[in-house]
Amino acid sequence: MSKVIVKEKTQREMFHVKNINGLKEVEEKLLKEILDVNGDIYKICLRLIKSGGKRIRPILVLCSSQCFGELTKEAIQTAAAYEFIHMASLVHDDIIDESFVRRNKPTVNALEGNQVSVLVGDYLFAKAFEILSTNRSIKSMSIAVKAIQQMCDGEIVQADNKFNLNQTIENYYERIYKKTGILIASCCQAGAIIGGADKVQVEALKAYGKNLGYAFQIIDDLLDFTGNEESLGKPVGCDLREGNITLPILKLINQSIYKDRLKKMFKKGITVESYYEILYLLKENNALEEAYDEAVYCIKKAKDALEIIEDSMYKRMLLDIADKVLVRKN
Amino acid sequence: MSKVIVKEKTQREMFHVKNINGLKEVEEKLLKEILDVNGDIYKICLRLIKSGGKRIRPILVLCSSQCFGELTKEAIQTAAAYEFIHMASLVHDDIIDESFVRRNKPTVNALEGNQVSVLVGDYLFAKAFEILSTNRSIKSMSIAVKAIQQMCDGEIVQADNKFNLNQTIENYYERIYKKTGILIASCCQAGAIIGGADKVQVEALKAYGKNLGYAFQIIDDLLDFTGNEESLGKPVGCDLREGNITLPILKLINQSIYKDRLKKMFKKGITVESYYEILYLLKENNALEEAYDEAVYCIKKAKDALEIIEDSMYKRMLLDIADKVLVRKN
Repeated sequence: MSKVIVKEKTQREMFHVKNINGLKEVEEKLLKEILDVNGDIYKICLRLIKSGGKRIRPILVLCSSQCFGELTKEAIQTAAAYEFIHMASLVHDDIIDESFVRRNKPTVNALEGNQVSVLVGDYLFAKAFEILSTNRSIKSMSIAVKAIQQMCDGEIVQADNKFNLNQTIENYYERIYKKTGILIASCCQAGAIIGGADKVQVEALKAYGKNLGYAFQIIDDLLDFTGNEESLGKPVGCDLREGNITLPILKLINQSIYKDRLKKMFKKGITVESYYEILYLLKENNALEEAYDEAVYCIKKAKDALEIIEDSMYKRMLLDIADKVLVRKN
Repeated sequence: MSKVIVKEKTQREMFHVKNINGLKEVEEKLLKEILDVNGDIYKICLRLIKSGGKRIRPILVLCSSQCFGELTKEAIQTAAAYEFIHMASLVHDDIIDESFVRRNKPTVNALEGNQVSVLVGDYLFAKAFEILSTNRSIKSMSIAVKAIQQMCDGEIVQADNKFNLNQTIENYYERIYKKTGILIASCCQAGAIIGGADKVQVEALKAYGKNLGYAFQIIDDLLDFTGNEESLGKPVGCDLREGNITLPILKLINQSIYKDRLKKMFKKGITVESYYEILYLLKENNALEEAYDEAVYCIKKAKDALEIIEDSMYKRMLLDIADKVLVRKN
């Protein structure tokens, strides 16, 4: 993990590929789209848009499409739609996880309650589909709805497996694919299709997105142990307290002695002391390093997938994004 | 209200226009569509499908389309999609309203908690859009997403106006249009378009749906005062306890003496005694009768809207459904 900790970067903007063709238009589209709704939902959506999201999904749509063709209106609109889907899923996730802080700010459900959060999420989902249907982006729509269904499924699987120490690493990968990977892969896939990529190229972009998504979530799960609350914008150690078994823990409990120890801790509930004991064990046993190495491997696979794609500024941006995932701190 | 109470009918199936062409296929479609999801969501969705909904929305799509043409695959699929949207909105509404009983059965959030309810609703919304996108039903989709946005907006407006006795009857109509009317109108509009109706005919069906929706919600709001818990499948008196100001109350508080009385009651919280006092006042002042008369007027307008439509079995079914709204008890 030293690699993660050593590098100093301006994290907040690290995924903002400056001046990427179309991103300004996406931001405008996001702001313009919510103008039709009444005061309360509007204010909340405006706050969400301005809350400093990394815009990874729109950036992926824009880069993926421009690997193959000129910037189109459809790419901008699809990029905005995917950001709305992402925002909607965050708002609903915060209800599900009962999270009250995200990006250093109180979540919608912390401020407004579950009721409003449900509605704001539904509104944003509907808005995304309105954008896609207005543009007759049937293919993007079909990819997006399948992703949403899988994301719901993934959340249920995650809930069902809380505190379950009998999960395998394969289970973990399946789960994080549904949770994070599929929407990221969808962005790349939809972008490539919009840009006019052929089937093989679309598959390559999808594979890039899938592996990027894996790495993104592995790092996210690592940050829950190693991150800094301030740069992360939310409390650390949440996963373990809530019983979400992530990759570092799965690496650790490969040794049955630690599995038994953890089982006992879960029985009593995770205290500050037991949390620090686990953190110590993770470090002592190289579990954090090993998990990080898997993220590195996923990033290698993501970049390899792009080998068949012709060189361009946008391909280089995608490769750059992949590298940045490994050094992100929020 | 005597009209409502006197008529004896098998209420549960009253909206099931027996053997309507396509309804069996819609039921099959609903069951088939959820087969792709994991065990937990599947079981919950199956329970929802089998929980005895009236299927008004699919019936409206099927009748509206067959007023103009043969039964098509698109009509069946759109009908199923609208039922999924309706189911999703019920599941999310039960979180918003913290309702634990619907159709004599515990709600999803009562059984499984808010977390699962959020996901099941999202899954059903995504499923609806998957069906519409698979069939390239862009027009139906565009109508549906606008309806969902309005429904979210309506829920927020309703929440903002709880215990607000300064609402007008116009406010009430706007609110129930967003809450109920727009989705019902959408079903008729989408059905007519699928059937090949011209612009004037589409508008007629939309007007029918809008007025049907008004009447449907007025009766729903009346049943909260006059209904029987068993046939209704949920507790009565909820609206008032939760501060939802419905048409009978608005009729009553036209007289400022009752407005002041209600204001005082709201301040203390609605008790069993104050609830029965209000019920007595509503009856004494003909407020229930007056509200019912407005539903009758909406049904007249709904039926009048269909005057320009050529006579057919399906038009007669639509007229029949309108009449049945006035005598429904659940």
